[in-house]
Amino acid sequence: MSYLTKTKEQLQALLATEKERFLAFKELGLRLDMSRGKPSYEQLDLSSGLLDMLNSQTKFSETNDYRNYGIGDGIPEIKKIFCDLLSVKPSEICVLGNSSLNIMYDTLMRAMQFGVLGGTPLTKQEKIKWLCPSPGYDRHFGITEQLGFELITVPMTSEGVDMNAVENLVKDETVKGMWCVPKYSNPQGIVYSDKTVERLASLKPKSKDFRIYWDNAYMVHGFNGDTALKDIFAEAKKHGNEDIFYMFGSTSKITYAGAGVAFFASSEKNINDAKAKMFYQTIGHDKLNQLAHALYFKNADGLKAHMARHALVLKPKFDAVLKVLNEELGELKIASWLAPNGGYFISVDLADGTAKRTLALAKEAGVIFTPAGATYPYGKDLKDSNVRIAPSMPKIDELITATKVFCCSAKIAVLETL
Amino acid sequence: MSYLTKTKEQLQALLATEKERFLAFKELGLRLDMSRGKPSYEQLDLSSGLLDMLNSQTKFSETNDYRNYGIGDGIPEIKKIFCDLLSVKPSEICVLGNSSLNIMYDTLMRAMQFGVLGGTPLTKQEKIKWLCPSPGYDRHFGITEQLGFELITVPMTSEGVDMNAVENLVKDETVKGMWCVPKYSNPQGIVYSDKTVERLASLKPKSKDFRIYWDNAYMVHGFNGDTALKDIFAEAKKHGNEDIFYMFGSTSKITYAGAGVAFFASSEKNINDAKAKMFYQTIGHDKLNQLAHALYFKNADGLKAHMARHALVLKPKFDAVLKVLNEELGELKIASWLAPNGGYFISVDLADGTAKRTLALAKEAGVIFTPAGATYPYGKDLKDSNVRIAPSMPKIDELITATKVFCCSAKIAVLETL
Repeated sequence: MSYLTKTKEQLQALLATEKERFLAFKELGLRLDMSRGKPSYEQLDLSSGLLDMLNSQTKFSETNDYRNYGIGDGIPEIKKIFCDLLSVKPSEICVLGNSSLNIMYDTLMRAMQFGVLGGTPLTKQEKIKWLCPSPGYDRHFGITEQLGFELITVPMTSEGVDMNAVENLVKDETVKGMWCVPKYSNPQGIVYSDKTVERLASLKPKSKDFRIYWDNAYMVHGFNGDTALKDIFAEAKKHGNEDIFYMFGSTSKITYAGAGVAFFASSEKNINDAKAKMFYQTIGHDKLNQLAHALYFKNADGLKAHMARHALVLKPKFDAVLKVLNEELGELKIASWLAPNGGYFISVDLADGTAKRTLALAKEAGVIFTPAGATYPYGKDLKDSNVRIAPSMPKIDELITATKVFCCSAKIAVLETL
Repeated sequence: MSYLTKTKEQLQALLATEKERFLAFKELGLRLDMSRGKPSYEQLDLSSGLLDMLNSQTKFSETNDYRNYGIGDGIPEIKKIFCDLLSVKPSEICVLGNSSLNIMYDTLMRAMQFGVLGGTPLTKQEKIKWLCPSPGYDRHFGITEQLGFELITVPMTSEGVDMNAVENLVKDETVKGMWCVPKYSNPQGIVYSDKTVERLASLKPKSKDFRIYWDNAYMVHGFNGDTALKDIFAEAKKHGNEDIFYMFGSTSKITYAGAGVAFFASSEKNINDAKAKMFYQTIGHDKLNQLAHALYFKNADGLKAHMARHALVLKPKFDAVLKVLNEELGELKIASWLAPNGGYFISVDLADGTAKRTLALAKEAGVIFTPAGATYPYGKDLKDSNVRIAPSMPKIDELITATKVFCCSAKIAVLETL
């Protein structure tokens, strides 16, 4: 069934058929957006109870009033829940504002300005390189690009980031850090294997400034049950290596993407250093939102039970996209993808050199995807092959149509080159 | 009645009397905190209705859902209210998170890292000086001290910052900015006069990087009616000088000190530059809290009406402190102060060299004040004279006692030296 075994006439006939389909799609006047990993309206409605946690009748303590200034590192009630989820101590975590990306950004800005644990500020260092497991998250890469670092593409394997490459690269003292989305990775949905976690936990980078930005954005976001991720912090402690891990996450895809709470966990040494610097930045984050979240979840199990409701919404959407991909592209050998067990994305590798053309065609038919290349440093996918599909937002019938448009576009893009 | 006209024996008798009073205060076992400008429990209760604005029955639009990602510069509803209050256009303002201090800090970090409107990053410049009208806000001074700037103390006059000094100092190209609290200043409660605003608005600093951090923290916080502050932004526009003003404020002392909303207003050029940089920092701030605030205030007049209720709580507290100060120190000529019409502080200048000793005594009797010196750069008041009193938090009977303890301590501190 592969295009490669067809004659030129057969290929031209196939192209003509797909072009006809494409015109029919265009006539539907679609306006679908598969570009970003946003929770759907239906998912946001799952957390409506959060808005009932506080009201004008809520009693606040006169001596410890969360409506007032103070408590820069998060209220004990919300810390407890994240401590239980992450198996860290209260002294190893800060719960801050609504965005983990913001915390990562600020953490890097502190490293730039004040250095890492008393080291030379990165901004005073001649050259900074940063490891970017790819395909990866465009906004991670964006931060380190904005700061002028040299971004080093590191391949992903089915077990997570390619550890042979990482172990080799960190021998370079100018390599100061690495982005990671270890569970249901963005965009491939890969969960780092035990072996990968163990090798990372015992990593001995040349630079003392080296930090792994462990963005556990999807830690409880499985929709086929939970795929366990080995506890990298506990593992790192065995090697006295816990200082190299900064761990981040938020409830952006648990409660509200615009109004959740986010955390930063690390060794006490790192957390104390960050707190001492953050003291100048703010008198504290929104403790009422932290309190509402704590009351709503009750505890870590409550949070997990809440995620099971998200899974019920997300799984059929992913299934729908995967079914169309299988039906339309499964036997053509012009594309490959992984079926994730969680997260927000499906990553498709198209025939080399056809990703941009495919998405341009899809856009012509009214379906928007994350721009081709966005999953690579500098927005440049040298093979022009990877596409990130975000199935969470559209309704299922829209997803089916959008994925058909995508497949039709991908076929045309390949057939045009043969 | 001044101590200066007394004989040695009279002074010793007075000291003995005050020491006896002091011992009596100590025996009360007081634990009062006048150190920070925090809204009281009663004031926080004024905003309880804010917590009823959103609940599980609230309908969100499917196409423009404030629970989701997006809108990095604030929702239109809350922007409208601040635009009306400040007389700025929506393109001249961002409404962000819960802390204006955080916005100021981030704005300075951007200047450090990326420069001011394309200029050389401050971090790459050899020497940075910063103007600090003093007495002033310790947390302002803290930020610029943390960044390693040289802090230049600029005197305050009854009309605001000493403009002769400012106009002279900005001839130095290494002077890159200035802190200002223009209305009911922290700690003196001074409102910058029209003349001061006009001279600032037409200021022509040598450095293109120079910015005035105009922290209008108390813009609607009068408790004896409103004392008008001339619109510096409109005035600056007359001189094509609007780019040198960054204006900040928040609802921390309007709704909740831990959970309000904060803004950053400036010229379109500055705002667009900030937005372009902030794009990398976050996908957006808490829009639900912005929405709740917009629904609660309804409009700028609603916000002002809300502040009238704060005034009713604050005015008797300030009156109580001022009454004791007048009664106990009014005729002794060992202290001077201004009676503010708004804001959160009373600033008292004690006899030179007695502020630290006074506050140490007060602490011994269980009453905590902001440390002496905190109102000056580097926490050093060369005259050891200025004390900041924050009357908002304690109850009136506590305030009266605390102020008596303060006066008694101040008298002892002076009498000890005579």
